[in-house]
Amino acid sequence: MSVPGNLFILSAPSGAGKSSLIKALLAQKSDRAMQVSVSHTTRDARPGEVDGEHYHFVSVDEFKALIDDNAFYEWAEVFGNYYGTSEAAIDAQIQQGSDVFLDIDWQGAQQVRLRHPQVTTIFISPPSKEELLSRLQSRGQDSDEVIAERMAQAKSESSHFQEFDYIVVNDDFETALADLTTIVNNQRLKRSQQAIKHQQMFAQLLED
Amino acid sequence: MSVPGNLFILSAPSGAGKSSLIKALLAQKSDRAMQVSVSHTTRDARPGEVDGEHYHFVSVDEFKALIDDNAFYEWAEVFGNYYGTSEAAIDAQIQQGSDVFLDIDWQGAQQVRLRHPQVTTIFISPPSKEELLSRLQSRGQDSDEVIAERMAQAKSESSHFQEFDYIVVNDDFETALADLTTIVNNQRLKRSQQAIKHQQMFAQLLED
Repeated sequence: MSVPGNLFILSAPSGAGKSSLIKALLAQKSDRAMQVSVSHTTRDARPGEVDGEHYHFVSVDEFKALIDDNAFYEWAEVFGNYYGTSEAAIDAQIQQGSDVFLDIDWQGAQQVRLRHPQVTTIFISPPSKEELLSRLQSRGQDSDEVIAERMAQAKSESSHFQEFDYIVVNDDFETALADLTTIVNNQRLKRSQQAIKHQQMFAQLLED
Repeated sequence: MSVPGNLFILSAPSGAGKSSLIKALLAQKSDRAMQVSVSHTTRDARPGEVDGEHYHFVSVDEFKALIDDNAFYEWAEVFGNYYGTSEAAIDAQIQQGSDVFLDIDWQGAQQVRLRHPQVTTIFISPPSKEELLSRLQSRGQDSDEVIAERMAQAKSESSHFQEFDYIVVNDDFETALADLTTIVNNQRLKRSQQAIKHQQMFAQLLED
């Protein structure tokens, strides 16, 4: 019997560094497979984004058909675009023993938590407003108007921090990465998972 | 407001390497104080053991007076000697912000869990019977009879592994130490603790 993987939700205001942290986390050596869930979206691909790898890029009509089929774990409309997470694909990844990371907002987190109560939820916070603004500006990819919108969005997202199991403050990147790694590895040391992984060992320790 | 420390119970069969792991854990750099609780005992001090540091060595009469005073978190008689843990001392350590480690058996764990439900309990397991026997023999401090008694005790102790929150298998020492460190650090990343630690940060992120 192989040990099922764990499901994690990572939420953060835009600019908190969530994407970089997830990328660095998955690049680390691990004795277990780790994958991000690939979401469906109706927004246009940004330069360098690959269909099926970064997102499943679909039309609004295709997205709405998937909603009607109840295919999504959760879905939401953000900044005028649809985003959704396919439940079947994630469940399959977990059963195959892979840890799966959902990169979604607090609203998505609430929806997934209802259907998957044992999910581990992590809120990644910027260390201050000033630092968040500075990071958003230095990306150079958004207009002042979009940045102002993201700052308002950050406040709204942060107001839900008490709904999360864990909080990682991304002040120093390496410290935040170590914290994230701790939370992920910790799940694997829980008795429920260790009892499956070391089933034969315990059987031998307890035999006459 | 300072963040209170966490209380951990570490239980293991004799020879699983618990004492060495705790010693190595406390020797690591940490941003928080970590201490073992100092137990009371009626057994004789072994060579090198210091009163007040390794144990509070007391007479049977003194121990029984402390029981009558309800001074112990938990106490037990093991191999004909009394061992007890003072509740007041541990509570004070935790309130001062220190993580406290209780080195007790499954019976003590059950008693502490009743009075302190948020305690984190960790079972340290040897990787096999053969390895445990080999470690007990190589210590060279016990007779064959005592070793046989410890092996029987190990089976009895291991039969309670399902009562613990976490399981650390001490096959490779460095891996076991990393696992133990993960569990200890993980507690500090929980929202309840981070919300206290980063109270001002969240207040600033949420202000207008």
